[in-house]
Amino acid sequence: MKGVDSLKEKNTTNSPIASQNYSDNHKSNNSSNKRKTKNISGTRREKPPVQIIPLGGLEEIGKNMTVIRCDGQAVIVDCGMAFPDDDLLGVDAVIPDFSYLGEIENEIQGLVLTHGHEDHIGGIPFLLHEYSIPIYGTALTIGLVENKLKEDGSSSLSLLHTVESGSTFKLGKFSIEMIRVNHSIPDSSALAITTPGGVIIHTGDFKIDYTPVFEKTADLNRLGEYGKNGVLALLCDSTNAERPGNSVSESHVGASFESLFSRAEGKRVIIATFSSNVQRIQQIIDFAENHNRKIAVSGRSMVGTVELAQRLGYLHYKEKTLISMDEISRYRMEDLVIITTGSQGEPMSALSRMAAGTHRQVTITDKDFIIISATPIPGNEKTVNTVINSLLKLGSDVIYESMYEVHASGHACQNEIKLMLSLVKPKFFMPVHGEYKHLVKNAETAYELGYDRKHVILAEIGDVVSVTSRSASITDTVESGRVMVDGIGVGDVGIAVLRDRQHLASDGMVVVVCSIDENNGNLISGPDIISRGFVYMKESEELIDEAKRTAAAVLSRFSGKNKRRRNELKSALREEIGRLLYQRTKRNPMVLTVVMEI
Amino acid sequence: MKGVDSLKEKNTTNSPIASQNYSDNHKSNNSSNKRKTKNISGTRREKPPVQIIPLGGLEEIGKNMTVIRCDGQAVIVDCGMAFPDDDLLGVDAVIPDFSYLGEIENEIQGLVLTHGHEDHIGGIPFLLHEYSIPIYGTALTIGLVENKLKEDGSSSLSLLHTVESGSTFKLGKFSIEMIRVNHSIPDSSALAITTPGGVIIHTGDFKIDYTPVFEKTADLNRLGEYGKNGVLALLCDSTNAERPGNSVSESHVGASFESLFSRAEGKRVIIATFSSNVQRIQQIIDFAENHNRKIAVSGRSMVGTVELAQRLGYLHYKEKTLISMDEISRYRMEDLVIITTGSQGEPMSALSRMAAGTHRQVTITDKDFIIISATPIPGNEKTVNTVINSLLKLGSDVIYESMYEVHASGHACQNEIKLMLSLVKPKFFMPVHGEYKHLVKNAETAYELGYDRKHVILAEIGDVVSVTSRSASITDTVESGRVMVDGIGVGDVGIAVLRDRQHLASDGMVVVVCSIDENNGNLISGPDIISRGFVYMKESEELIDEAKRTAAAVLSRFSGKNKRRRNELKSALREEIGRLLYQRTKRNPMVLTVVMEI
Repeated sequence: MKGVDSLKEKNTTNSPIASQNYSDNHKSNNSSNKRKTKNISGTRREKPPVQIIPLGGLEEIGKNMTVIRCDGQAVIVDCGMAFPDDDLLGVDAVIPDFSYLGEIENEIQGLVLTHGHEDHIGGIPFLLHEYSIPIYGTALTIGLVENKLKEDGSSSLSLLHTVESGSTFKLGKFSIEMIRVNHSIPDSSALAITTPGGVIIHTGDFKIDYTPVFEKTADLNRLGEYGKNGVLALLCDSTNAERPGNSVSESHVGASFESLFSRAEGKRVIIATFSSNVQRIQQIIDFAENHNRKIAVSGRSMVGTVELAQRLGYLHYKEKTLISMDEISRYRMEDLVIITTGSQGEPMSALSRMAAGTHRQVTITDKDFIIISATPIPGNEKTVNTVINSLLKLGSDVIYESMYEVHASGHACQNEIKLMLSLVKPKFFMPVHGEYKHLVKNAETAYELGYDRKHVILAEIGDVVSVTSRSASITDTVESGRVMVDGIGVGDVGIAVLRDRQHLASDGMVVVVCSIDENNGNLISGPDIISRGFVYMKESEELIDEAKRTAAAVLSRFSGKNKRRRNELKSALREEIGRLLYQRTKRNPMVLTVVMEI
Repeated sequence: MKGVDSLKEKNTTNSPIASQNYSDNHKSNNSSNKRKTKNISGTRREKPPVQIIPLGGLEEIGKNMTVIRCDGQAVIVDCGMAFPDDDLLGVDAVIPDFSYLGEIENEIQGLVLTHGHEDHIGGIPFLLHEYSIPIYGTALTIGLVENKLKEDGSSSLSLLHTVESGSTFKLGKFSIEMIRVNHSIPDSSALAITTPGGVIIHTGDFKIDYTPVFEKTADLNRLGEYGKNGVLALLCDSTNAERPGNSVSESHVGASFESLFSRAEGKRVIIATFSSNVQRIQQIIDFAENHNRKIAVSGRSMVGTVELAQRLGYLHYKEKTLISMDEISRYRMEDLVIITTGSQGEPMSALSRMAAGTHRQVTITDKDFIIISATPIPGNEKTVNTVINSLLKLGSDVIYESMYEVHASGHACQNEIKLMLSLVKPKFFMPVHGEYKHLVKNAETAYELGYDRKHVILAEIGDVVSVTSRSASITDTVESGRVMVDGIGVGDVGIAVLRDRQHLASDGMVVVVCSIDENNGNLISGPDIISRGFVYMKESEELIDEAKRTAAAVLSRFSGKNKRRRNELKSALREEIGRLLYQRTKRNPMVLTVVMEI
């Protein structure tokens, strides 16, 4: 770690709590305060402002990443990826634009991870291609990152540091406490980042579960202590801010499972869920063991996470409970539970292969009882429905979201956000993680508690939000945006390429080819026409012939013309062929012209 | 109408109810019955079976169409279209395969429409391109079809016949009663089709609304009478069969509007809803008039439907209430209500243009109060969210589904389906209109009421379901499927074209062009490389150069070879260029090769 001692020099207590002065400030009901700040040594000076620079996760779902900068040093919170929207044709993943990090490279003390979901860690391999930054997180998070880096063939494993939930560690002038919160993956943390300018709390993804399974309730007391001592700004998960009330407890899902396991008697149970939802998997394992069933695990990421979680002590099962997929044929259907990936209908996932009848070890019949224990992420509804329909047609029972409580969201609803705000009592409140509508709803939740618009920060990615005890304002913007990953290409698919893909996708393309004499422009060979994705060629011979005649007519117009005039030949061909095809079909294929001069 | 008298000859009463014998049959608790059927003239003979042939609407949402065939005659119920799934790249609409109608063309007595939604009438223009079939429906339905045919430039307007809700009319040997049901468009009907083989009731799309607005509750009494007298089969809407309980009443939405109009005081109100939801539009008009606001209508389909519905007497407003969009600038914001299309986030709709700042007459500010009074159809969530986010960023209030009851579904939930079943008491129950999972849930609803699997028909499109008083079975299948409409092409976009579009969409394409001497295969010109949608060419010069070198190497290998061997040239070029590009980018662009022999 670099420069871990500087904070200690300023604050002789071990508490990572912001200075008394700011806390006074807060107690005076957020009134503006002109008194000078007093530092430990007794001399008066202004505290440095804290800059909060979101590089992802605002006005979008995914690729969460935030830079916290103060007094010439910076820490990064999370480095996620996003799944591409439907309009990003052929794009595999979207990651934040890291350009800004280049400007502050020397200031960066480390990257701290709130938890191990892809939208918080998925960008790390790409980040480490460019920068060497030490990374901190709880054991499961670091384990998942390690798997990811090994797959990437990365040599940066030494940058990974495991810290304990509830512990405090130092990064340069910053002190960071990992505060336990509940979420749909174990060991999730809110971060209390004590900077020379005040305390920033980032909730990460969180919910508050009073009856969690295999873990404790979010550390409300610690959050309350920070609140009592003064918090400059709270960055708060907005994902479920549209929902009133409280999220459903993970233990509630257990009650559903109990009755479903009874209904499934005599049948094989297949449960699809997120591989990262280790608490859910532990519940399934416990029910399986209670019902004397063996468990097999299908799907690469599910196998990997179960192995990792068990090795790190997050998952517990009897030695003989787990069998391999190749062994399932040796057991009776009613003695089995299969835990599988594919709860989002992902086309190549294990559940999709079962539904399509192409899974190597599993053939679905009316002896199967299938539970999809996850809510479709917006945009995935159709693929999930396709899988459900196929499984039903194979005769199996399928239990899915709209029928039973077989999933509980991992994100705080309005009451939990209000509780977080009431405990932490931040001077400034900044909604993060969500589309604009989620940020707005989260802001409105704060307004309900009496916050005014000056103390609620609605920012965009790339904004530099400067916060002092007196005010918060956007003082600058930095380079930010989305970088598209396609294959091994990072950032080489841009707007122009995507526009072409959209054009090709909607109407296909037509290539007009000919060769002409370079001296006089006379036709030597062709014109030929090739098309793909436009019309079915064999059934449209007439149209293609007509296009050839049109091309020949254009070519003969240019025949004998000098070379300069022939520059217009290609655009004339493109225009006239395009016009003809549109007239005949009301479609606009991409028209490419290849004129070889010989 | 053709042959309207045949039924009368058999049944001397005016009641369109099935023969007493079948009804006895039903009363004997569905027990199999070997007694011979007695017809009116006293001689014993078997009744002819009724064939139900769904051509669309099963295992899918949309393009609803069913043929009912009996004793050498047939009627068609509905002729809808479906919106293409995301994987049908570039496809504008999907309609049923009409091939089977060609086989029974002489038998077809008419097409009867349950209501005027696109998924029930959208296929009609395409149907009339091939067949001349008289069409029957209530006034609004026929009005909407007429508009559609006029747009299509059709000369078939004389085929349209308006029938009254609640009336009975004859088509050949069939007698058809239009039974009033509730739905999200006025004058929706269930059809009671009395055939020589028994009564078939088709619910169309329905809900049962005890407190509808501007119309009456579904005609429960008439449905009950049919049930008392005996119904052979009930074809029942499955859209909401997953939902327990009852659907929300349309009048409930009014209560939401009341409080929203109060909240909107001092602001312009903009409400987006389906143009066909005339009841909703009437409610909005009434609230506007009560609050002394003028109404303007934006969006082509909204303007068209409001005009049509007012002309036909479905919409009522004071003469001065309605103003044109061009007049809105003459009024204060707080005196206006704009009713608009775009509730599904359709990219070119009026609301999307307002959100994008490109609407000619409307600029959104914080003086706008926008209500999206519709639920996103599955698959539209993302586009709707995009519009909501943009409108919020412009400072307006936006009220959307997840926050208030500003929409009520038009489809029956489980309790309403149970009521329908309990009134109609059909011998056989056939779920229609829905994905397979909806059909299964609808079937389960019948099982709950004591129906067994022999009396519930889960069919696929193209199945010929033969129903007699004794049994229902699938006796045959006919040609059926989906026909894709792209531009003016109907059916010319098939699997091969779509596969190409998907390939082009995901990785773009590369064209390798060269000309060679036809005698010896020596290179004359090229190789050149053109790409679109693959990589950004300027930044990938190196890769393109490498591909050219690879192409040149392949060409020189084939140089001097005889013509026969050169047949392999193109596939060798395609393979080696493809392999190179995949190695360098992990992408698989479509590789086309053009080798001109000169």
